Amino acid sequence: MKHLAILGSTGSIGQSTLSIVEQFPERYSVATLAAGRNIDQAFQQAVRWRPRLISLATEELAGQLDARLRQAGVTGVEVAHGSQGVVACSTHKDADFVVSAIVGVAGLEATHAAILAGKPVGLANKECMVAAGEILTAAARERNVPILPIDSEHNAVHQCLRVGAHSEVKFIWLTASGGPFRQLPLDQFAAITPAQALKHPTWVMGRRITIDSATMLNKGLEVIEACRLFNVPPSQVRVTIHPQSTVHSLVEYVDGSILAQISVTDMRLPILYALAYPERPASSLNFDLAALRHLDFEQPDLVRFPCLRLAFEAAEKGGAHAIALNAADEVAVQAFLDGRIPFLGIPRTIEGVLAATPEAHPATIAEVLASDKQAREQARALLA
Amino acid sequence: MKHLAILGSTGSIGQSTLSIVEQFPERYSVATLAAGRNIDQAFQQAVRWRPRLISLATEELAGQLDARLRQAGVTGVEVAHGSQGVVACSTHKDADFVVSAIVGVAGLEATHAAILAGKPVGLANKECMVAAGEILTAAARERNVPILPIDSEHNAVHQCLRVGAHSEVKFIWLTASGGPFRQLPLDQFAAITPAQALKHPTWVMGRRITIDSATMLNKGLEVIEACRLFNVPPSQVRVTIHPQSTVHSLVEYVDGSILAQISVTDMRLPILYALAYPERPASSLNFDLAALRHLDFEQPDLVRFPCLRLAFEAAEKGGAHAIALNAADEVAVQAFLDGRIPFLGIPRTIEGVLAATPEAHPATIAEVLASDKQAREQARALLA
Repeated sequence: MKHLAILGSTGSIGQSTLSIVEQFPERYSVATLAAGRNIDQAFQQAVRWRPRLISLATEELAGQLDARLRQAGVTGVEVAHGSQGVVACSTHKDADFVVSAIVGVAGLEATHAAILAGKPVGLANKECMVAAGEILTAAARERNVPILPIDSEHNAVHQCLRVGAHSEVKFIWLTASGGPFRQLPLDQFAAITPAQALKHPTWVMGRRITIDSATMLNKGLEVIEACRLFNVPPSQVRVTIHPQSTVHSLVEYVDGSILAQISVTDMRLPILYALAYPERPASSLNFDLAALRHLDFEQPDLVRFPCLRLAFEAAEKGGAHAIALNAADEVAVQAFLDGRIPFLGIPRTIEGVLAATPEAHPATIAEVLASDKQAREQARALLA
Repeated sequence: MKHLAILGSTGSIGQSTLSIVEQFPERYSVATLAAGRNIDQAFQQAVRWRPRLISLATEELAGQLDARLRQAGVTGVEVAHGSQGVVACSTHKDADFVVSAIVGVAGLEATHAAILAGKPVGLANKECMVAAGEILTAAARERNVPILPIDSEHNAVHQCLRVGAHSEVKFIWLTASGGPFRQLPLDQFAAITPAQALKHPTWVMGRRITIDSATMLNKGLEVIEACRLFNVPPSQVRVTIHPQSTVHSLVEYVDGSILAQISVTDMRLPILYALAYPERPASSLNFDLAALRHLDFEQPDLVRFPCLRLAFEAAEKGGAHAIALNAADEVAVQAFLDGRIPFLGIPRTIEGVLAATPEAHPATIAEVLASDKQAREQARALLA
C-alpha cells in the first residue's frame, strides 16, 4: 500500500491521480493533499479522502476550509496553507510517494523537500525539471530517490529505456503533435488569435500548455526535461512530429533498435505507471491496436517553430537559460492570451530575455527562484 | 569472447552471422560450422574462419572438402558429415553459443543436443520451435539455457518483453507484411503463379518462406513459435498486417501500454541482438527515423488467408497438429512451386492433413520426426 501526497490535487493530474486511487484502493491511499484556491473541490476531496493534512493557497482559505470541515463533522484532517503548507504535505511522515502536479515553479520547493526527505516522486510538473533539474536530479541520485515522469512523453521514454543500458542509448525521440498550426501557411502566423491557439488537436490541457503546444515551446521544455531526467545532452534528444499522439515517444539504441511506446491519450496511464512502477496493474485504459490504421511522422520545421530552436539553444547552455526560457514563455503566453502581444511576440519575447540572460548555474532552489524572478521581470520590461 | 557454432553457415542467416563475426572480432569467433551441399562456399568459410570442425551433408562431400583443405595447406580443421556431423558441431566443447539456422526439421536434433549440452542458442529455425517447441523449451528451462530468437518478429517481442513481467503481458502482436496478395481481388487467387508468389514486398528470403509469406502460413508458424518461446497460449498472440515491415512486432501490457520495436529490415540486427544479449553493441544498422513518414496497419482477413486460420487452430491443439501444419505446408509449397497444384491447393492440402492428424503430443525428438514423416506422407498421398 502506497500512501500518497498529491500536490495539486484539484488540478487535472491531481484529479486523475485520485481516480486511480479510487480504482485501486488495495494499492493506494491518500496521505496528504495540496490544493490551491478551489475551496469547494478541496472540501469535497477532504471529505472523501480524509487526508491527514490538506493545504490551501492562503491562510484565509485554510481558515474557511477548517470551519467547513468542523461544521461537517469531519475530524482528523489538519489544514495548512501557503508554500510551507505544500512542503508539509510533501514531507509528511505518513506519505511515502509524492505526486508533484502543481503547475509552474510553485511546486518546486515542496518537490525538492520531498526528495531531500527520501520520498519517491511522480513528477507531472515539467517546470520543476526545467528550472531546477540539475539540483533535483543531483539530490535524487545522492539519496537514491526515484523520480518517475508523469507526462506521456517522458513516461514513454522511461519505459523504452528499460530494454537497454544508459550507455547504449543513441537518441531519445520525443513525439510532438505539432499543435494546431503544423500546416498553417507561414504568412498567417502573425494573425493567430488566442482562440485558434487554444484548440489542441489531440490533448485537452490547461491554457498555458495548450499555447505552448501551438508554439512547440512545450516540446522544447520537454527536451530540457528529458536531458535532466535521463542524464543525456541535448544532442541526444530529438523531436519528431506525430500528429496522432499515439506513439508517445521512442528510444533509439546504438545497435539500431528503436523502442516505441503506444497507448491511449489519457494521463491516468502514466500516473498509474509512475505509482505502480516497476509493476503494471491491469487497467481499463486499452488502446485498440486492431483499429489502428495509420501513424504519420514528419520533421519539425524550426522556421515555423522558432520556440523549439530557442529551447534547444537554452538546453545547451542550461542553468539560467533554461530557467529564463520557461519564465519568459510563461509571461509572454499570458500577454498573448490577454491580447497584449501577437502570437509571434511569444518567441520574440523569449529570444530577447535569453539574449539578456547571463550564463549561470543556480546551485540552490533560492537561486533558481531568484533567476526565475529576474527573467520574468526582464520579460515584462520587454513587453512594456 | 563468444565462440560460435553456426549451423547452416552457407545459408542467408549463416552468412549474416559470419559478417557480424567479421565486424566484431573482439566479441565473436567461429568454433564450428555446419554447412550443407555448397562445398565451394564451405571451403572458403573453412579457409577464412579456420573452425575446429566443419560438417557437410554427405560423406562424399566431406571427403572432397577434406582433400581440398589439405591441398590448400589448411590444417587444424576437422571435417565431419551428416546429422551426426551437425550434432558434433552444435555440442563441440569449444562452442559456447549455437546459431541454429538450418532450415526445416534437419536442424532439430542438433539444436536439442546443444540445449542438452547447456549451450545458449540463437534460434533462426522456426520449424524447430513449431515441431518440437514443447520439448526444446522444457529442456531449456530445466537447464536454464537461454533461447534467443533470431527472426525479426520474435526478436522484437523479446525486446518488448523486457519492460514488464510475464504475468503483465496481455497480447503479443506479431506484425506481418501481408505478402504480395494483400490487396489482390479474391477471385484471382486461383490463378496465382509461383513467379507472382515469389515476389515479396519487403524481405528477400528463401523460396519456401516467401511462399509462406504469400499464404501467411509463415505468420501462423510464428504464432506457434511465439507461444512456445514466450510461454503464452494462442489466445494471447495476435497478428496485425503492417505492409512496411518497419515495426517488427509489439507487446501489449495489461496496464494499457504497448511497446513496439522498430528497425531496418536486415537480419544482422536480430542476429547481433541474440549474440550480444543483454548488451547492445553499436552497429551501422541505423533506421532513419527522421525520414519516417507513414506506418500503416490493417487486420488480417482469414478468408483471404485461410492458412492463418489453420495455424491458429493447430496452435490450439499443439503437438502433432503443429508438426503436421509445418510438414504439410512444406510438401504443398514444393508441389505449388513445381506447378503440380494451384496456390489455393496449399491450404486445401494442409487442411486435409490436419483433419487426418490424431491429437498427440510427441515427447521425444524421435517421436517428433516420426510425426513429421507421417504428415508428409499424408500430404503426398493427398496430392497424388
